[in-house]
Formats: sequence, structure tokens, C-alpha cells
Amino acid sequence: MNDSAAIYEVIEAVAKKARESSTRLGTVDTQTKNSVLGDLLTLLEDNKSTLRLENEKDLENGRKRGLSGAMLDRLALSDGVIEAMKSGLREVIALPDPVGSIETLTRRPNNLLVGRMRVPLGVIAMIYESRPNVTVDAAALCLKAGNSVILRGGSEAFHSNMVLAKVIRRALSQHNLPTDCVQVVPTTDRQGIHALLQHDEYIDLVIPRGGEGLIRMVAENSRIPVLKHYKGVCHIYVDKMADLEKATPIIINAKTQRPGVCNALEGLLIHEAVASHYLPEIAKKLREAEVVLVGCPRSVAFSSLISDAQPDDWGREFLDLKLCVKVVDSMDEAKDYIATYGSKHTEAIITEDHAAAMAFLAGVDASAVVVNASTRFNDGGELGLGTEIGISTSKLHAYGPMGLEELTTRKFVVFGDGQIRI
Amino acid sequence: MNDSAAIYEVIEAVAKKARESSTRLGTVDTQTKNSVLGDLLTLLEDNKSTLRLENEKDLENGRKRGLSGAMLDRLALSDGVIEAMKSGLREVIALPDPVGSIETLTRRPNNLLVGRMRVPLGVIAMIYESRPNVTVDAAALCLKAGNSVILRGGSEAFHSNMVLAKVIRRALSQHNLPTDCVQVVPTTDRQGIHALLQHDEYIDLVIPRGGEGLIRMVAENSRIPVLKHYKGVCHIYVDKMADLEKATPIIINAKTQRPGVCNALEGLLIHEAVASHYLPEIAKKLREAEVVLVGCPRSVAFSSLISDAQPDDWGREFLDLKLCVKVVDSMDEAKDYIATYGSKHTEAIITEDHAAAMAFLAGVDASAVVVNASTRFNDGGELGLGTEIGISTSKLHAYGPMGLEELTTRKFVVFGDGQIRI
Repeated sequence: MNDSAAIYEVIEAVAKKARESSTRLGTVDTQTKNSVLGDLLTLLEDNKSTLRLENEKDLENGRKRGLSGAMLDRLALSDGVIEAMKSGLREVIALPDPVGSIETLTRRPNNLLVGRMRVPLGVIAMIYESRPNVTVDAAALCLKAGNSVILRGGSEAFHSNMVLAKVIRRALSQHNLPTDCVQVVPTTDRQGIHALLQHDEYIDLVIPRGGEGLIRMVAENSRIPVLKHYKGVCHIYVDKMADLEKATPIIINAKTQRPGVCNALEGLLIHEAVASHYLPEIAKKLREAEVVLVGCPRSVAFSSLISDAQPDDWGREFLDLKLCVKVVDSMDEAKDYIATYGSKHTEAIITEDHAAAMAFLAGVDASAVVVNASTRFNDGGELGLGTEIGISTSKLHAYGPMGLEELTTRKFVVFGDGQIRI
Repeated sequence: MNDSAAIYEVIEAVAKKARESSTRLGTVDTQTKNSVLGDLLTLLEDNKSTLRLENEKDLENGRKRGLSGAMLDRLALSDGVIEAMKSGLREVIALPDPVGSIETLTRRPNNLLVGRMRVPLGVIAMIYESRPNVTVDAAALCLKAGNSVILRGGSEAFHSNMVLAKVIRRALSQHNLPTDCVQVVPTTDRQGIHALLQHDEYIDLVIPRGGEGLIRMVAENSRIPVLKHYKGVCHIYVDKMADLEKATPIIINAKTQRPGVCNALEGLLIHEAVASHYLPEIAKKLREAEVVLVGCPRSVAFSSLISDAQPDDWGREFLDLKLCVKVVDSMDEAKDYIATYGSKHTEAIITEDHAAAMAFLAGVDASAVVVNASTRFNDGGELGLGTEIGISTSKLHAYGPMGLEELTTRKFVVFGDGQIRI
């Protein structure tokens, strides 16, 4: 047997075991699931030295391969990272269990009672880069929602992910749950991903997290439904009726609080009626915060702090202290611009005009549309989902942050007393 | 330019126009959408003779190609079929418009108001066989949910579908809505389907309806998410605590009321405690209804009306007056059997034992799980969705019948008064 065939065989076995164990997990009660997560808290603390030892192998390999300091930093299982995992676990324990709930049971004319019960999806595959903490976060969310999970992290975090999975599996076995509910793909070969993406008979959903390249690769090769976002190109539109005292802190926050994330601001649209006096002011504030400004000819004319935008700056995800500015003649122009250059992630309007706010809300197509607040709020925790496994800019199944509920589906349940169809 | 390139070009133009027109349709008010559907009612009536003329072309081609009488029957736009279309339209007009509704707005600790607004998916492609009435039903549902639709019916119904689209487009233009919201693919070449399935940048969802072959072809070639069911292999499990007077009419109804549809009964599982006296009785009733019975050795021993099942009868979709019977030792055996041979469509239990009913409900994975009623109730109309565009046995986005709500998604809407992320 050649290597490629061996990889396909190993992956099929992983997927099959995930499917088989998911049947049992789907009907486990909430208390047991929470106890597993509670034990995991203790096990992470008790096994710190083992975790460090395995993580050091990854760090050592990373240094040899010449990873940047920032990359090595993301890879390290520091005390801080372990604390963050533990606090994530506590959050998931505190969340209500969606499985088994029925929102409403309605009575049909023939006396049938019809409702929709939340049930697990079944098996979820996570394909992600670097950060080993995703291993624990994703496993905890999938487990609580009653799903088996197959984890395929970055090859540079292989040893860390394997030992984390071992700890999670110990917590499962302490409660007599099948350990195959949580599996890490036991190969770093890229063929492993391709093999995984063929098994639509065993896997219900794939969630890729990482750079646009990884996500496109997964989306284009998968026979399994994929929930994803490619990028976040978020805009704030400052309306002619904006309260500019609200606008300034919102813009500064959206651009500078964490410029490297998907809900950070990348494009600023300003109505021409306020541009002449507001653009110089906000440009100054942004420059003080070390933001590099590029823009359209009119914006350049309003402020010497703005330089000419290059063609590929429109709709670009800078992920950096850089911002693209455009003066628009109307809200409709802003909406058209967003429809052309946005990424369906997060779009915001600053206005005191109720009609403008409602028209923007209804007419802009994005996973979150925000009135008078920072784009940085498009996040599962901030929007009240508790914690998230990712953000979807696909419209099917979930649009926006995905929490526990988005890791489940609803089946119809029908209670009768002998009804037949006429 | 060769033919293939020409087809790809035509299809791309169709998809692009669908996307462009969907932006406008997404914010049209309910009254206008209902007026379009109301005008369509009148137009169908007024254009009966044109419809017949075009339909006759398809029938004539069908006769030449040697289509069966049943196939020609499905193809005919008879008065009855036109009346059915009209009554479908009246149903869709009566349904509440899901677009723009926000179920709840909750207040976050920082005073942000967060909700989820129902919005159209955007562009839906329907790929279906024969029956031209699907053209009007699907267009009406997509339109009411604010989506543009691309229709690709069977090649044998091409002229009928083209003239129906023409009538629908006239209704749209009477209300100044873009006619490209409803388009029929202007080629019967199979390459047109392949071309369509590549345009994930313009099309949000594909719904194939027809035989398993068509559906597999679509699922395997699509870059766009597909909602589908391959087949309906539905079971009824008669528990040891069943009220057998309820069981008999339910079984007869599920098997014989319309044996050719996906929610008809294909497998009967009977607990061994009731099999000895109930199997002979139900077998007799089923034979009287002209149902051919095959089964496991034990069932054959209980009734001479049952003959030995062939290996491929287990889990087979007969779509005919034929039924596969099995005696089981426990409800767990029935659940395992359903997990192996079921199609995640509809599964039912007959029991007076509350614990058994609830365990079956929670433990069986199917788009609808039914207690003490016929499997035939898994249908959008019967379950209270008003009318349906199909049934999904995929778990993502929709699981079970898909009505107006399932043709929409939810985006987050956030109302602030200056909040920034801390």
C-alpha cells in the first residue's frame, strides 16, 4: 500500500468512529456533558507540565523552521493561554444546553401537536491554523451541542493538539463516554484534509478557520457543507445627520482597538455634507492613533493627512493600522459601495435620522448591520451567544457568529393519537 | 465560439441578472409582492389558450419521444393543473411575509439592542423534472420570500416553462419590479446545469427536485450549497405497548394513501411481544389493500401472506404497493434498524407507553419523528408551514419541509447610541 492510500484509510477510520460515537453523544444529559467539561478544567491544570513538554516540541520545530516571533507566540501554551482555555470552558459550562428543547408545540386542525426539537448536527470537522487553544474551545462547544468533532489543526501545532486531545479524551472516558467523540487527525499531511472532505456520509459540517487561502482550499474541495468567512472588509458610513461626537470614538475603536481581526474597520464612508469639516478632524485623530490614511480625490482635497488610494485599496482587508476613506454624495451611494466592496461581514451607520438608520439596516446585506456602535461588536460573546466557534458570511444555516445553537439543527416532532392523512 | 462556451456565457448572464435584480426585490413591501401574485392569478386564467398552445408543443414532442401515458399526464397543463397552481398562489398570498421580522431584541449589559432580522437568501436555483406546475409554485414562494429564482425544469416541459415564466414576468413588470427576478434557463442542454452550479458568486442556494439520479448529479457537481433529499425510506415501529386499533389505520394510510411519494411507508417493524397475534391481522388488511408483503423469517412464520425478503429489500424505497416487514426484539433493535436502513426522512412509533414515545422521539435521527400518526404528515402544508418548496434530509439550514422561512436567513441587527468595544 502506498502512503496516499494509507492516509485515506486512516482518515476514513477517524470519520467512521466519529459518526458511530456521535449517536451515543446525541442523547447524553446536560449534567454529564458539564461534568466532562468540569473534569477537563482540572485535567488541564494537573497536566500543565506534560502540555508544556509536548508544546516545546512544536516550538522547537517552529524555531528550526524559522517561524516569526509572532507565530511562535501564537503557538505557545503559556500560563495565560491555559487560563484562557479554562475560562472558555467555564463559559461553555454556564451556557444552556440547546439539545432537546422545543420552542413551541402548535396544534393543527386535526389535533396533531407539531413542534421542532433542537438536535445535534452529528459530526463536525474543524480545520484551523496555529493556535492550539482552538482545540479545546472547539471541542468544548461541539461536545456541549452533542456533536462529535474531528480536529485538524496546523501542522506546526501537531504535538500540542495531540496532547490536548489526549487530555480531553481522558475527561470523556472518566464519564464512560466514547473517547472518539473528540479526535485529532493523526497526520500532518495535506492529503489528510482532502481525504476528510470526501466523507459526506460521516461528517455533517466543516468549519475552516484561518487565512483566506486555507478557507478557499477547503470550500473548493469539500463535498460536505462548509461554514466560513473569507475575510472581513467592514465599513462605517457617517451620515449627513450623524452625531459626530458619537462618530469619532466609534471610528477610532473600530479601526485601532484590534486592527488584525475580521470585525475591524477597513473602509470609512463620509457624506459630503459633513465631510468638509469632519474629515480634517477625524483624519487628525486617526493619524494621532498612527493610522495610515488613503482615500478618494475629494477626501485628499479635504485633508492633507490622506494620500491617494491605489485601485486595490478599495475593498481591501488591511488587517493593519491603515484605512481607506471615501466621500459619498448620498446614503444610496454608500450602500452601493458596500454592496460592491463589502464582504457581508459587518457594516455600520452613524446617524441620528431614524429613517436613514432603518433604511440602512434593511438594505445592507451583511451578517451584522450596526447603528451607532463599533463594528467590533460582531462577535458571539458581545452579541449574547456566549461564545462562538466562528463567524459565517455564508447565508445558509448560519449568518454571523456561530454559537451552540448554530451547532445544532431542528427536526420536526409530531404527537398524534391515531391521525391519518385524508 | 463553440456551443459549450456559448452555453456558459448565456448561463452566466442569467445568474448575474438574477443577482442584480435580487437586491431590489429584497426590500419590496409585502403588499406589492402579494399584488404581483394576485395579478398572476388573473393572468393564468386569461392566458389559458396560449398556455395550452405551448404545452401542446411539449406534449407533441413527448408523444414523438414515446413518453408513457403517466409521463404525458404529469406534463399536461390541464384545467385541473391550472386550478391547482391558482390555489397554490392563493395559499402563498395568505402566508405572512417573513422578510424584515425580528423575533426578539435583547438588551446587552452595555445597552446595545441586539436582534436577528429575517432577510432573503438572495438567489435560488430550482432544478426539477417534468411537472410544469413547479415553475409557478417555486416562483411564487421565492418571490414572497424576496428571492430571485432561476428555474431549470425538465427538457420535456421546456415550452410550457418558458410561457409560464413569460406570464410571471408580465405580472412582475405590471408592478415595476425587475422581470429578471424570475428566469427560466433558456437551454435544455445538460451543460446548462453544470454551468449554473459553478456560480456560487451569484447563486445562494440550489434546490433539486426529482429522481435520485438528478439529485446526486446536482449535489456532486455544485459549488453552491444544495438542499435536498435523495429518497424517503420511512418506517413505522409498532411497540409492545401499541394500541393496535390505532396502529392498523395508520399503517394502511401510510402505505396505501399515496404509495409513490417520499413520506409513504416502506418498512414495518413489529415488537415480538405483539407480532404473533398482530402480524397475521395487519398482513390480511394490507393484502386486502393489494399490498405485496415481504419480510424476515420470523414474520414469514407468523403469516403466510408474507414472503421472504430479498437482501436489497431492507431499506428499499419501493414507491409502490409493497412493504418490507421485520419482527424486532426491542425498541433499541428498531432504532438500530432505522439508523442503518432509514433515510432520515420520516420515522414513526405506535405506542401508549410515554417513556417509549419520548425515547423514540429523542433517539431517532430523521427530519420528522412521529408518535401515533401516519408518516404521510411530513409535508409542509400538514405541519403548518403553509406550503413547501421541498423537503430536506440534509441537516444544514433546514431539516424537513422547507417553507417561506427556510427560504430566508437571519442577519444580526444592532442598535447602539455610541457604544465602543472595551
